[in-house]
Amino acid sequence: MADAAINLAEKLAQFDEHWAPRSVAQLNDYDIMVVKVRGEFVWHAHPDTDDFFLVLKGRLTIRLRDGEVSLGPGELFVVPRGVEHQPVAAEECHLLLIEPTGTPNTGEATTAAPRRTL
Amino acid sequence: MADAAINLAEKLAQFDEHWAPRSVAQLNDYDIMVVKVRGEFVWHAHPDTDDFFLVLKGRLTIRLRDGEVSLGPGELFVVPRGVEHQPVAAEECHLLLIEPTGTPNTGEATTAAPRRTL
Repeated sequence: MADAAINLAEKLAQFDEHWAPRSVAQLNDYDIMVVKVRGEFVWHAHPDTDDFFLVLKGRLTIRLRDGEVSLGPGELFVVPRGVEHQPVAAEECHLLLIEPTGTPNTGEATTAAPRRTL
Repeated sequence: MADAAINLAEKLAQFDEHWAPRSVAQLNDYDIMVVKVRGEFVWHAHPDTDDFFLVLKGRLTIRLRDGEVSLGPGELFVVPRGVEHQPVAAEECHLLLIEPTGTPNTGEATTAAPRRTL
């Protein structure tokens, strides 16, 4: 057991790639991840899980088919399972994500970013 | 479905009680909670789940039987299931907690704070 605090800003400073989440901890069978995003991600849904977004820095818009949610630092949103959504960030945005281990970030294994650990 | 950002500071401004988590969202069968803490909590363990702490404001020490972890804003720690721990905060500290719905905060249903929703 690593008895050390996990500093999210330090973890985020270790990579520059966008839309490529890095796992920083495990909570039961969930991955706790940080990610940098900018621009438009693909429209997608996760049929088997809700999708957790917490903004650490910058602003994120989560487009939904019936509207959108705008998030700033210290704000979170959970997209319910099966709901189509498109994350969009005009400027670079840093997020904390929580998903069951193995969840493809695009909703489909064939197009998903590999799951990496910091 | 509530298409609105959940602002953690606004949620925390709605109560003053310590060691009394409030659920602000659900992620599958997990509660996303905010809590204000100050002083020493009881030593306890959760036999069936890891225990997630993210500091939003202030400082938290998590005492373990073999050491301790000190967390500031933007730092997180996951106490593995079954590991005894005692959260301590010299000054008021604000946390984001994530636990399976129904997990007693003291590790035992008889002494746990009731689970409340904001």
